[in-house]
Amino acid sequence: MHQPEPAFLQALTAIVGPDHVITDPSQSQSYFTDWSGEQGNAPLAVVRPKTTEDVSRILALCHQQRCAVVPQGGLTGLAGGATVRGAAIALSLERLKGVIELDAESATMTVWAGTPLEVIQNEAEKAGFLFALDLGARGSCQIGGNVSTNAGGNRVIRYGMTRDLVLGLEVVQADGTVLSMLNKMAKNNAAFDLKHLFIGSEGTLGIVTQVVLRLHPKVNGANTALIALPDFSAVTRLLRYAQQELSGLVSAFEVMWQDYYRIATTVGGSRAPIAADYPLYVLMDLQSANPETTAAPFEAVLEHAFNEGWALDAAIAQSHADAEDFWILRDAVAEILPHYAPTINFDISFPISQIGLGVERLRQSVHAVDPTLTTMFFGHVGDGNIHLLVGPIPHGDKTMEHEIEKRCYEVAQALQGSISAEHGIGLHKKPWLAYSRTPAELALMRTLKQALDPHQILNPGKVFD
Amino acid sequence: MHQPEPAFLQALTAIVGPDHVITDPSQSQSYFTDWSGEQGNAPLAVVRPKTTEDVSRILALCHQQRCAVVPQGGLTGLAGGATVRGAAIALSLERLKGVIELDAESATMTVWAGTPLEVIQNEAEKAGFLFALDLGARGSCQIGGNVSTNAGGNRVIRYGMTRDLVLGLEVVQADGTVLSMLNKMAKNNAAFDLKHLFIGSEGTLGIVTQVVLRLHPKVNGANTALIALPDFSAVTRLLRYAQQELSGLVSAFEVMWQDYYRIATTVGGSRAPIAADYPLYVLMDLQSANPETTAAPFEAVLEHAFNEGWALDAAIAQSHADAEDFWILRDAVAEILPHYAPTINFDISFPISQIGLGVERLRQSVHAVDPTLTTMFFGHVGDGNIHLLVGPIPHGDKTMEHEIEKRCYEVAQALQGSISAEHGIGLHKKPWLAYSRTPAELALMRTLKQALDPHQILNPGKVFD
Repeated sequence: MHQPEPAFLQALTAIVGPDHVITDPSQSQSYFTDWSGEQGNAPLAVVRPKTTEDVSRILALCHQQRCAVVPQGGLTGLAGGATVRGAAIALSLERLKGVIELDAESATMTVWAGTPLEVIQNEAEKAGFLFALDLGARGSCQIGGNVSTNAGGNRVIRYGMTRDLVLGLEVVQADGTVLSMLNKMAKNNAAFDLKHLFIGSEGTLGIVTQVVLRLHPKVNGANTALIALPDFSAVTRLLRYAQQELSGLVSAFEVMWQDYYRIATTVGGSRAPIAADYPLYVLMDLQSANPETTAAPFEAVLEHAFNEGWALDAAIAQSHADAEDFWILRDAVAEILPHYAPTINFDISFPISQIGLGVERLRQSVHAVDPTLTTMFFGHVGDGNIHLLVGPIPHGDKTMEHEIEKRCYEVAQALQGSISAEHGIGLHKKPWLAYSRTPAELALMRTLKQALDPHQILNPGKVFD
Repeated sequence: MHQPEPAFLQALTAIVGPDHVITDPSQSQSYFTDWSGEQGNAPLAVVRPKTTEDVSRILALCHQQRCAVVPQGGLTGLAGGATVRGAAIALSLERLKGVIELDAESATMTVWAGTPLEVIQNEAEKAGFLFALDLGARGSCQIGGNVSTNAGGNRVIRYGMTRDLVLGLEVVQADGTVLSMLNKMAKNNAAFDLKHLFIGSEGTLGIVTQVVLRLHPKVNGANTALIALPDFSAVTRLLRYAQQELSGLVSAFEVMWQDYYRIATTVGGSRAPIAADYPLYVLMDLQSANPETTAAPFEAVLEHAFNEGWALDAAIAQSHADAEDFWILRDAVAEILPHYAPTINFDISFPISQIGLGVERLRQSVHAVDPTLTTMFFGHVGDGNIHLLVGPIPHGDKTMEHEIEKRCYEVAQALQGSISAEHGIGLHKKPWLAYSRTPAELALMRTLKQALDPHQILNPGKVFD
């Protein structure tokens, strides 16, 4: 089907009503693509269901008609997973919105997939809990998208990825079958745990409609420090020592290499709490119920780090404003990017023990292509996740971009890393997937896709071909 | 194939050598079944590979010959997942043993599937870490079995199930294909996370040969208390308050109902640290790097619980010996069981908010069948997991046993619980699986089985038919 047939549109309209089947491209422009910047086109229609039953009927219809479906949430993805390519409907979950239940005794919250992350965070806080997922797009992204991309963010070291925060799911399969797996228990070994098929598979195996989330105890503040270190070995020693002494409560362990720190404190406009002459900087955060009582052990860790020579300089936040100042440094990426456009933005992970070497090799790889390029390294080192910005690519030269990507992903491959730590594959990283997955893994992924979506209607062309 | 053909045995012998193909039933008796007590029979052969390559060649052969394979680890399973039924080889992983690598900087350990859990715990401790999985069978069970059954245990409230402790896997598929997914990173979103297919699927989708484990910071001791409470509402209030004040560090929250506590302190032979007259008892543990510094906030929680009327009496362990004494209460099950044999042992989970009601209904269900039966309730309430012992069943009456199981699983179903929190399905709970899974879920499980094991050679007859 390359043009929307009138009967097909009528059937969609019969399900969701005429206001929620948008076929005029001038009215559907915001649904063409996501934040990835991947080029999208007009969908056959934007369809906006209100209930699980709607989603089920839409998928059953599309399955029967062999019509491709691109599921869409808040459209904040960075890999093009929600971009419309070719003849497909865009299925927006935005109207499946709101909290269904907050079960305080069980510490769970059940929500519709289209609920924005920030709404969930706020509802959890009101009830005396923390919903631990947090990322920059919190105001726009939707939990269904977070689940489908297994979103990461700033607190993974303490609370895990989105996968670790999901207890249950309701999912609609390609043929419209509804899987009701709204489990609330930490322990449930009644056969296969099917929800993991749908978490992180970017809408290619099913469409998430409801999510049961795990809530954590509320935190009331943080102990925060910015620490300068001599080398990467000092970084891993500090990480292990801090985790040991603080019983695993470290909630962020963000590392900035000198190249990033210098630019953040000049071009990026951030204040430099400590001088910019050190090889490495760690932003360490310990969120807790009682930051006053955790202050002493937190500072004892820093003292030990000085005594051992791991820390060369440090600043401890004395106020919430100080802590925010430190975090502005880490979040300066948005200010920096325009100055180096066009950039390549890598989202790589390595085993933690390989990060020091990995960063060195990535830098060499970039400079082997063009020694004048600027590199900026920073990342969630506690999770093995490094972000690398490279730019400006002269005249946006695609051949050079490709060459740099190839060399960097070869480094990831050689050190058993991943080409995508948290952003996912979508369209953007599809050409490089084989650098992180073996032929046997790719074959099994295709087997699963064929078994769950035999007519290939769910987000076709995404993740792999 | 109902008899082992000579050519088939020769081919197996060519792979692993004559010492590791055992066909004489008198020498293979220990491989017939596991701790479940399910009736097993002699395998066509016990085959004991030494390498991943061996496992791959054995499965390729069995796939081609359509010979069933029962994977076996330490044979400590309680659901019959490793029991031999009918014509099948028993594939014992016991020779794939040992630590392959401990990467201290990355806080990971890579091990062979046949490594006993206790060996892994000890190696982690020697390197200054905690491997957080712990269960009674630690000396005999093997990590490959723990992964295949997604084992739970005593520390799930803090560290999660086995699934949460696994970063990477090497798995051999039914046709002998080796999936090498030895990921060490907390973050890896390079397409589908395939390892979750094999964790908890009880050897029906693939055979685990290597595991990359996540290590946690070492703990040096615990704050432990035994607390008497007036009702289940006080239990959940105490749980939430303790988790809040102690920043989620509670490492065990075991509840004993009066029926269990009375029997444990009489028939079970345990000392009663507090009187046996209270409705409920909580054993609360907080393991940490520095138990001295956590003692004050831990005791403050108890004080608050008294002030609020949640706690009626309490004993705080003043020594390691005291703490062991409290745990003996909880572990008295082994002493109690023979006195009430034959028993039915349930392993149910409920949303935490439903446990109080669930226990009441379970008790009514048992007594509706026979009011003279003894019930004993206890469990990992922080994870929603209740164990119920019922006995003695007069003359081991199978009809009565079935009637009690049916009524109890109806309670689990009605309250959105699970028929198996942690033991798995195996043979033992297969007849009841539909009480916890919808027809759509069961259909998808069958689709996966068909896609991954088209000749149905991997542990056939287990989990579902």
